[in-house]
Amino acid sequence: MAEKMPKTNSKTKNVKAYKNTGKKQVAKSTKKSAPKKGTQKNRTTQKKPIEKLNIIPLGGLGEIGKNITAYEYKNDIFLVDCGMAFPDEDTPGIDIVIPDFSYLLKNQDKIKGLVITHGHEDHIGAVPYLLKNMNVPIYATHLTIGLIDGKLREHKLLESAKLNIVEAGKTIKLGAFSVEFIHVNHSIPGAVALAIRCPAGLVVQTGDFKIDTTPIHDNVIDLARFGQLGNEGVLALLSDSTNAERPGFTSTERLVGESFSNFFQKAGDHRIIVATFSSNIHRIQQIIDEAVRCGRKVAISGRSMTNVVAVATELGYLSVPSGVIIELETIKNYTPDKLVIITTGSQGEPMSALYRMAFSDHRNVEIIPGDMIIISATPIPGNEKFVSRVVNELMKRGANVVYEKMYDVHVSGHACQEELKLLLSLVKPKFYFPVHGEQKHLIKNARLGEAMGISKGNIITAMNGNVVEISQKGAKIVETVQAGRVLVDGLGVGDVGSVVLRDRKHLAEDGVIVVVMTLDEATGEILSGPEVISRGFVFVKESEELIIDATEAAADALEQCYIKNINDMTAVKSRVRDAVSRCLYERTRRSPMILPIVMYV
Amino acid sequence: MAEKMPKTNSKTKNVKAYKNTGKKQVAKSTKKSAPKKGTQKNRTTQKKPIEKLNIIPLGGLGEIGKNITAYEYKNDIFLVDCGMAFPDEDTPGIDIVIPDFSYLLKNQDKIKGLVITHGHEDHIGAVPYLLKNMNVPIYATHLTIGLIDGKLREHKLLESAKLNIVEAGKTIKLGAFSVEFIHVNHSIPGAVALAIRCPAGLVVQTGDFKIDTTPIHDNVIDLARFGQLGNEGVLALLSDSTNAERPGFTSTERLVGESFSNFFQKAGDHRIIVATFSSNIHRIQQIIDEAVRCGRKVAISGRSMTNVVAVATELGYLSVPSGVIIELETIKNYTPDKLVIITTGSQGEPMSALYRMAFSDHRNVEIIPGDMIIISATPIPGNEKFVSRVVNELMKRGANVVYEKMYDVHVSGHACQEELKLLLSLVKPKFYFPVHGEQKHLIKNARLGEAMGISKGNIITAMNGNVVEISQKGAKIVETVQAGRVLVDGLGVGDVGSVVLRDRKHLAEDGVIVVVMTLDEATGEILSGPEVISRGFVFVKESEELIIDATEAAADALEQCYIKNINDMTAVKSRVRDAVSRCLYERTRRSPMILPIVMYV
Repeated sequence: MAEKMPKTNSKTKNVKAYKNTGKKQVAKSTKKSAPKKGTQKNRTTQKKPIEKLNIIPLGGLGEIGKNITAYEYKNDIFLVDCGMAFPDEDTPGIDIVIPDFSYLLKNQDKIKGLVITHGHEDHIGAVPYLLKNMNVPIYATHLTIGLIDGKLREHKLLESAKLNIVEAGKTIKLGAFSVEFIHVNHSIPGAVALAIRCPAGLVVQTGDFKIDTTPIHDNVIDLARFGQLGNEGVLALLSDSTNAERPGFTSTERLVGESFSNFFQKAGDHRIIVATFSSNIHRIQQIIDEAVRCGRKVAISGRSMTNVVAVATELGYLSVPSGVIIELETIKNYTPDKLVIITTGSQGEPMSALYRMAFSDHRNVEIIPGDMIIISATPIPGNEKFVSRVVNELMKRGANVVYEKMYDVHVSGHACQEELKLLLSLVKPKFYFPVHGEQKHLIKNARLGEAMGISKGNIITAMNGNVVEISQKGAKIVETVQAGRVLVDGLGVGDVGSVVLRDRKHLAEDGVIVVVMTLDEATGEILSGPEVISRGFVFVKESEELIIDATEAAADALEQCYIKNINDMTAVKSRVRDAVSRCLYERTRRSPMILPIVMYV
Repeated sequence: MAEKMPKTNSKTKNVKAYKNTGKKQVAKSTKKSAPKKGTQKNRTTQKKPIEKLNIIPLGGLGEIGKNITAYEYKNDIFLVDCGMAFPDEDTPGIDIVIPDFSYLLKNQDKIKGLVITHGHEDHIGAVPYLLKNMNVPIYATHLTIGLIDGKLREHKLLESAKLNIVEAGKTIKLGAFSVEFIHVNHSIPGAVALAIRCPAGLVVQTGDFKIDTTPIHDNVIDLARFGQLGNEGVLALLSDSTNAERPGFTSTERLVGESFSNFFQKAGDHRIIVATFSSNIHRIQQIIDEAVRCGRKVAISGRSMTNVVAVATELGYLSVPSGVIIELETIKNYTPDKLVIITTGSQGEPMSALYRMAFSDHRNVEIIPGDMIIISATPIPGNEKFVSRVVNELMKRGANVVYEKMYDVHVSGHACQEELKLLLSLVKPKFYFPVHGEQKHLIKNARLGEAMGISKGNIITAMNGNVVEISQKGAKIVETVQAGRVLVDGLGVGDVGSVVLRDRKHLAEDGVIVVVMTLDEATGEILSGPEVISRGFVFVKESEELIIDATEAAADALEQCYIKNINDMTAVKSRVRDAVSRCLYERTRRSPMILPIVMYV
């Protein structure tokens, strides 16, 4: 498949195609040269020390997102993925959450490269932040590199970055490691699993995957290769736990195409608007295919959707007949029956394109009664309410909105229980290591391993930062290194921590009261104030009396300090705070943050 | 059923049993005296004016919660339900949301009573707030009154309240209205639908309901009565839309009992903890029944669970063999295989009993490996993440947690599509009025009506505050009265509005910066400061430089004011705010709330 690889491409000028020795033959020769190191054999030939590999998940365990795993063999480390997570109600004001790179910074010299399994944000989102610390070479398939490219450009890191395109089927060397890319199905093209070899043995990491026997514009997951590796002898399998709670098989992406076909027919003369994830290029392909069949033009709405469609078209992942895509600004030149709009906002995200359409705030698209709107996505846990809000608004404007699961307008990109079991049965690892998921997902996945006959002792359930030492002899957590979350807020990386978050939550709950007073430095006499200013507490115009009471309480406290000759600023502040706090709690049963400020003249 | 009604009861000493004329005979006689007023007839006999009824939903439309509907005929008004809604991410710090009573306050003299369909918070939660404004008599079934009783006691309103117990099958008179209570199935006992008569015709309001042909300790919904009313001729049907998106039938509560039976067996020697809604007395009954069968004792955890179990037991809605219930403090005296704990916290609510167990913060219950924990509830939209968090924590402690839908440990209390259609087919109303639900639910329910042959023009889709005028001639929205939400925060009712909420959200996003300075009143010279204090913005100890920069920016702005002789306080504040804001945005890309405070000496 090397022929398909990079043309000269202004967008990826820093990218090198990886054309090294990596072929399946390498894998085979490895197979010959590395005899099975069963426990039996090791017991008899004690001369050779047992080789050990450390696998260190620095993110992605006990959580959804910020996937990053370090593989360490002696003096070599390489990384798999470097993703971000989204903030939640516990991290108000935060833009994104990235992994803690402390361990990597300490071991910077050992790091040979970063391998990315696919181009989703939870696998590439933190790449710029890592590269700001260390310029490690990056290896990924063509589309993934294309998406990283755009990200690095935004962060002004593209010039210096070392990007390498590696297609599925190829193997790269990273220090003592060789890493083979294996094609898998997922909700984005160019997704791979990895077969990782080092003297300690062969480890397979699935990445995010599903088994789709009828994928769109793509090959079926390379199950044969997983089978070969299984026969060769796999030490450990790190497997995607995202859907481990769901029984059965994930449906094929093609099912969604059939649903689209039905709904496009039902739409009749009306306009069709489809919201989906911008990265789901197969989905976008299906929408475009159906639009072409119905003789409709396609307009793209939303920044990330526009970007991804451009990158995917340029790299040949998306095939669009010429003349089909039209500019969003020109939709007014077409009748509704000739239009399909593909848009972002399938999660109901505030300020996304679909959200703006719903709330009549979109520059080019105004919802009209009869619009057929298909939300081709399932709400990510936590987003259910956002999606409902958008659906309700769209319906108020008379649109027909298709959003329920039962209509098959979305399928997951992750393997369900039967797929996980099938892969496990092919790979037949000694150790099973569920990754990518909250505790409940990891445990469900572990149970699947048990059900498949892997002994409890050979199933690894770890936490972020655990150093899992694996050898033919066994697997154990030998230590725990620093791993956690770093919060990105605007330009600040890590400057918002638990104290700031606690304050933000306090401010959000009950607001803030500032009590200012100017005192005579020498005598402690009140020269001005106290003045009480509130924000986020009560509507001041209607609560003047309350503010007057609080001011009086502060003045009384100050008076007492003066009488008792209390001059220490901390003590004065503390007494004022207590007095105001007590006064307000009595009257309102609320506890706003109280900031007493004493100025001395 | 009058015999079953109130014994002398210390808890409900203010309660009167309603033993008036209300019998089915009344309904029959009404039937005779009120001939069908078909359009035909009205056209021929024009002497009699067409009687009109106003139905005014003041809450519950376009939202889940705070259900309240006013029925108005000439000078008589009565209310159905008076519920609260829960706050969400748009209302930080708010305790509960209640309806806007403005319209009722204006028409206070007309209001003859408040009828409550059942004892859930979204139907009774705002009763104390209404009663603080007007002491209207309340009519509800025994359990509902029992639950309102506790609520009024907390608000010190019990002494003055006029509570009336009315059992299903009875009819009460409220001015020109007669209101018949009809037994329905729901996830709380004592739920009723209402048949409302006035000279304008007969209206049926379902309340929350489902059809359960094998309910627990209860009768099947009185379908025959709905059929009779249908034959009599129903003007309008107000129908519960909560589950209108779901196809099929809601499963019987008994299904949950079967699941409990399986999981209680699976638990073996381990302790069993079941979390559910405290109001789901049938569920609690099933847990207790199963515990008795397995020879286990039952302990109750959580304030609301303890309260409801006490009320329900006292009123005979819950039957517990003596000696089964034990005090939570005594569980240490029993081995795990002899214990069942019923607890609150099925929604993962922070600080609920189950939450505290999960985070090792419960006084009496410490999770031990092997505990079988059943979460017998579905997350209410918006709570999915809270539930996951609790499940993950419980699993980290080694508990077996059953929470998935597929295990049938929960069924809904609301009618699905087939039930809604079945009821509609019995009641055969002229006008169909979907209520209780977000826009998407109301529209789905309206579509069901269309599918059943009701013409689009006879389906009423309204919003809160719409005055829907209904007569045999037609239904239309004649005006819109004030209706909305009132936020309750601590003791404050309505003192937090959009300005305060906007400030809270701003504070939560980026924190607050206070800039204080003392100036000479005469000269405008700086006497002290500027001083910059931040909360929720950055961790100050690590960002001293940033704060110094901001202070300098403020000082420069002040200096400029002094030089340019700008003395007006508003202008000075504005310049300081702009300077600090610009400085911080440049360095951090964040926009905290900036509060400049100038003190004059």
